[in-house]
Amino acid sequence: MTGDAPLSVADVTRLAEDRLPKELWDYVSGGSGAETTLAANRAALDTVAVLPRVLGGFADASPATRLLGTDASLPLAVAPMAYQRLLHPDGELAVAEAAEIAGVPYVVSTLSSVRLEEIAKVGAATWFQLYWLRSRPLVEDLVARAEEAGCRALMVTVDVPIMGRRLRDLRNSFVLPDEVVAANLEEGSAGRAHELVDGGSAIAAHTAEAFAPNLGWADLEWLRTRTRLPLVVKGVLDPRDAARAVESGVDAVVVSNHGGRQLDGAAPSIDALPAVVDAVGGRCEVLLDSGIRSGTDILRALALGARGVLVGRPVLYGLAAGGVRGVGQVLSLLATELRDAMTLAGCADVAAARTVSTVRTVRAR
Amino acid sequence: MTGDAPLSVADVTRLAEDRLPKELWDYVSGGSGAETTLAANRAALDTVAVLPRVLGGFADASPATRLLGTDASLPLAVAPMAYQRLLHPDGELAVAEAAEIAGVPYVVSTLSSVRLEEIAKVGAATWFQLYWLRSRPLVEDLVARAEEAGCRALMVTVDVPIMGRRLRDLRNSFVLPDEVVAANLEEGSAGRAHELVDGGSAIAAHTAEAFAPNLGWADLEWLRTRTRLPLVVKGVLDPRDAARAVESGVDAVVVSNHGGRQLDGAAPSIDALPAVVDAVGGRCEVLLDSGIRSGTDILRALALGARGVLVGRPVLYGLAAGGVRGVGQVLSLLATELRDAMTLAGCADVAAARTVSTVRTVRAR
Amino acid sequence: MTGDAPLSVADVTRLAEDRLPKELWDYVSGGSGAETTLAANRAALDTVAVLPRVLGGFADASPATRLLGTDASLPLAVAPMAYQRLLHPDGELAVAEAAEIAGVPYVVSTLSSVRLEEIAKVGAATWFQLYWLRSRPLVEDLVARAEEAGCRALMVTVDVPIMGRRLRDLRNSFVLPDEVVAANLEEGSAGRAHELVDGGSAIAAHTAEAFAPNLGWADLEWLRTRTRLPLVVKGVLDPRDAARAVESGVDAVVVSNHGGRQLDGAAPSIDALPAVVDAVGGRCEVLLDSGIRSGTDILRALALGARGVLVGRPVLYGLAAGGVRGVGQVLSLLATELRDAMTLAGCADVAAARTVSTVRTVRAR
Amino acid sequence: MTGDAPLSVADVTRLAEDRLPKELWDYVSGGSGAETTLAANRAALDTVAVLPRVLGGFADASPATRLLGTDASLPLAVAPMAYQRLLHPDGELAVAEAAEIAGVPYVVSTLSSVRLEEIAKVGAATWFQLYWLRSRPLVEDLVARAEEAGCRALMVTVDVPIMGRRLRDLRNSFVLPDEVVAANLEEGSAGRAHELVDGGSAIAAHTAEAFAPNLGWADLEWLRTRTRLPLVVKGVLDPRDAARAVESGVDAVVVSNHGGRQLDGAAPSIDALPAVVDAVGGRCEVLLDSGIRSGTDILRALALGARGVLVGRPVLYGLAAGGVRGVGQVLSLLATELRDAMTLAGCADVAAARTVSTVRTVRAR
Repeated sequence: MTGDAPLSVADVTRLAEDRLPKELWDYVSGGSGAETTLAANRAALDTVAVLPRVLGGFADASPATRLLGTDASLPLAVAPMAYQRLLHPDGELAVAEAAEIAGVPYVVSTLSSVRLEEIAKVGAATWFQLYWLRSRPLVEDLVARAEEAGCRALMVTVDVPIMGRRLRDLRNSFVLPDEVVAANLEEGSAGRAHELVDGGSAIAAHTAEAFAPNLGWADLEWLRTRTRLPLVVKGVLDPRDAARAVESGVDAVVVSNHGGRQLDGAAPSIDALPAVVDAVGGRCEVLLDSGIRSGTDILRALALGARGVLVGRPVLYGLAAGGVRGVGQVLSLLATELRDAMTLAGCADVAAARTVSTVRTVRAR
Repeated sequence: MTGDAPLSVADVTRLAEDRLPKELWDYVSGGSGAETTLAANRAALDTVAVLPRVLGGFADASPATRLLGTDASLPLAVAPMAYQRLLHPDGELAVAEAAEIAGVPYVVSTLSSVRLEEIAKVGAATWFQLYWLRSRPLVEDLVARAEEAGCRALMVTVDVPIMGRRLRDLRNSFVLPDEVVAANLEEGSAGRAHELVDGGSAIAAHTAEAFAPNLGWADLEWLRTRTRLPLVVKGVLDPRDAARAVESGVDAVVVSNHGGRQLDGAAPSIDALPAVVDAVGGRCEVLLDSGIRSGTDILRALALGARGVLVGRPVLYGLAAGGVRGVGQVLSLLATELRDAMTLAGCADVAAARTVSTVRTVRAR
Repeated sequence: MTGDAPLSVADVTRLAEDRLPKELWDYVSGGSGAETTLAANRAALDTVAVLPRVLGGFADASPATRLLGTDASLPLAVAPMAYQRLLHPDGELAVAEAAEIAGVPYVVSTLSSVRLEEIAKVGAATWFQLYWLRSRPLVEDLVARAEEAGCRALMVTVDVPIMGRRLRDLRNSFVLPDEVVAANLEEGSAGRAHELVDGGSAIAAHTAEAFAPNLGWADLEWLRTRTRLPLVVKGVLDPRDAARAVESGVDAVVVSNHGGRQLDGAAPSIDALPAVVDAVGGRCEVLLDSGIRSGTDILRALALGARGVLVGRPVLYGLAAGGVRGVGQVLSLLATELRDAMTLAGCADVAAARTVSTVRTVRAR
Repeated sequence: MTGDAPLSVADVTRLAEDRLPKELWDYVSGGSGAETTLAANRAALDTVAVLPRVLGGFADASPATRLLGTDASLPLAVAPMAYQRLLHPDGELAVAEAAEIAGVPYVVSTLSSVRLEEIAKVGAATWFQLYWLRSRPLVEDLVARAEEAGCRALMVTVDVPIMGRRLRDLRNSFVLPDEVVAANLEEGSAGRAHELVDGGSAIAAHTAEAFAPNLGWADLEWLRTRTRLPLVVKGVLDPRDAARAVESGVDAVVVSNHGGRQLDGAAPSIDALPAVVDAVGGRCEVLLDSGIRSGTDILRALALGARGVLVGRPVLYGLAAGGVRGVGQVLSLLATELRDAMTLAGCADVAAARTVSTVRTVRAR
């Protein structure tokens, strides 16, 4: 990373935008459809106003916590994201190394561009994100590989029965470069995201071809019987689904709209969070992603009942801007901001942060 | 249609704006008065945020449905719109053909620029929209012609006792070109929209001269006794009127503010929808129009209780941009977007879409 | 008025802005302080969305009504405004003549630049607006003159204990030109708005010198015993004051923030209206002003319970743009717009307009 | 101050921005993080709309009041602000002199750049603001010095366990110039805000080094036993803390987010005020700061239950623009504006202002 050190995720974002070819910037930063949900994620977070507590009598707020039984230096895991070698030659290895240094879990994507076994060796607490393949033996194989590689949790993404329509990628005729492949999958399948499909998205076509569109609760319950790893369902917004997930034996749900990349018009995840927390009633952990860009955002999520957050795009921006060091700066910024925000909000620890009150205020800008 | 294929209705809209003379663009895209309602239709839709369902266990969402007893490939009909030959020489014939190919009903306007009998032959499921003429025999004649031509429903527009003040048309001194006439009406009457009236709108003057301004519930009930066709009332926003329409024997109401072209200051139809759905209590179908521009918008309407939507301007933009092929692209885009949105929202079919929850979120842009 | 005929009050406003010297434009169009209330009046009106009624079975909506026992062709009176000769040499005489032609009451300001007796002769239904002078004999004299001149109502302005701080006037060092005087008042007093006061507003200084700042309920009740004219209190926003006014025997209250010219930060009058209507409970008439710019705005006010509105600045813009003819165009536009809006909202008459429902919608622009 | 006399705080702000070096302008005007709270303070205040009372029968509104037993010509004290010699060579002495002339209390900051004893001699009612030093003897010493110097109240700031991240200062590498020191503190400590710390803020580092981060309720209660001065806690937003402060024996709480300079994402203080007023239930005084820029803003705070406000940045802008005279103009503007606003709202005195009703309106700009 050149020039002045970034002081916020916004700084890193600008660095990444400057550095990336337009089609990659669009692929990472864009959303689906009219990008209504992408914009609403930020607008909604900005109207969540915190009522800090004072005179708590503590010197150092500690953001350390446990997520799914894994120690984490802050209530944050790196979100699963495909093809990280698009942003930097070191790809997932750089991000996992930065996560390891920062002490936060790293979630390996099914579509990682480095094999999960190699990533798991880097040392971070590694979770494995599962896109459910059409072939059940392949699913079993992936789960077995994740367990064997020492992954500590299994996160099933449930909001991608198909890929959202991402118009920027379609306009850019975006395809994967040859050197970036879905390293966990057999080669024939992996190749498909590299060729333009008539009038459509290469990545969307690959998704449709490789992944099972008809995933159901029974599949999840089958998986529950097949692994002892903590099981997470990612992509829940309706409290009825959150309650059902608890009944299916999951250990956590992630309240998420996939960063505004799937259903355009889906609710901002921060708007959906409180009802999910209520429905779950403490029976499993509740995480949140989609729009988190600062320590204050993490505090907002905690205050509304989340146990932690996943952070996605900012990590990729850091990767683009400076490889392992860039990711480290992003995670370090978020850690500093969260510790400061907790201190300023009078929260000695994450449990205290979850008792902070909030009000909704008018949108200022 | 030249250049790249459009990826959204917004793309088609730009194509149409580029291609149309200003006065036609203004006539189609404009609204009445200060265009407050025109803008509010979009603003209100954008704040309806959907809570998708997950793990539904289905592979292909089916947007197929029945509207007023007519099979439709998606919960959409082409809204009745006057003088479609203004946009393209093929006019209504092109739009009806595209509707037929897409498998959605086409609503013939009383003010169509091609005779309803010719349009009905194109093959789409055809409904007839009735502007109530001052002469009752002429009304009876139109209804008889619609029945004879095989129209499958009768849609009475009730929000045009007079035409809304459309300032753009007045500024442009907009009149119909000679070759575009109200083909269903006798020639003397049809001619009137072609001459400037002192200080006023040619089309508004024609409306005032030709149509009965004092339409009442008794007229509707008389019509109910005269036809066995499903009867639809278009232009209802107040739940008291919706309930009254049910009591008058209608088969459907269309919650509509006429696309912001009649009462400026009227409520966005999406804001009015839930109370109408409640008032109707399942006793008739509820459709919605005014502002629908994407599959997500259709999902929003379904989630708030509509059985389907009418789409107007986007179809005319497609017609202007590329005739039958352009309209086809618009209908195909909406079908794709809706199928994708339903899949992403976990709705296997239209009935499921009507059980999705929504929240209102802050306006992001 | 040159060029094309104006199609809306916005058109007339632009004409006036083009024609007026900046200091006069600022004097008329400006508000007090940061002009927060001035802007909020419009923003609040724009979010009041009407639910039209349909199938009312009538041909011609009639906006004719009675206001304070005076016949009015529409539920509108010309608001009292000072020094109308600032805008046009004919001043109040032109406005009153246009009001007479339009069939609406004209409210003569205490600070009219033509003597009230001359204005009353023009023929419009004339009401007299009273600024309470420091000298009670002068008050009695003004009331007696108004009665003698045939004024049909007395409107006491209660929101000007002092003049609001109008920064534009202060920046422009705005003073009255020599030829414009407070014609109803004795000359010495009238002269005071023509000289700059150190660091202050000439008009504000005049107001402070001439008018009683300590007007109380007892004064109003004294006035009630002194005149048989209908008595109106103008400038009420709090429902407690509205109820008190009823108990003091008034015939009407005007819900008003003086067009955003007095307390900056005062509530938009449309926001305050419903609680005032409730508090009054039909015991007196409720009028509204501040921000009315279209027939739709009048309909909004009626729907929220007003019996009519006062219109101020648009009339002055018409006066500046074209004298009596310009005012006539404004009143004619508003009449046309209201009749159209009532027709489109299914309201045969003003009483029906008051039964229309509204919802608050999101701000679209 | 050159040129035309300022007519509003906005005018003075522009003068200050023109006159100050960018880094000083940024230091004074900026907030923490993304400056969300800084902007929200204004947005929230602008949506508080007042319902004025009328016909109160009084001539002159009197804003005079008592704050913490101190007479004040208006319900306002100058907020404690560090290092006022940054803005003008006369620094705190000029501001205190202007406060004395205006008849409002002046709150001396622990970090004043003139010794508190000298400031107290200027003659204004002086309160002392306490940042709790790491050394308890130093705290005792400061309190004793404040008492001895005749300070009439002790205001403990509780929202600075650490300093908020102020990105502008970090970008500007802002350090104190040599001639500006923390005059109340021993020299070694004071020096620290003059040197850049690696990658951080000089002032933040000084804060961290000098002040106790772990201040608790027990410390406050200890202080309560050590002084007879009225005790104020500044920086409370949560009503639970306000109630606890009452139980700890404080005489007032200041509802504040430190002008948007501490926790970015904290609630606008005006949004937090009503619940704090409720929780306190009249058992102590409630003051408010953060965003007050006009007499209307003061009225808004009173209407929502505050007994008075602290004003910060506007005073520094006045100091930068014109020393003692500039501060005097700001205080005089606010006094005039408040007296006018109270008069226009029908409030004869501060107690009446606290009975005025408010509504929340839509944001207009």
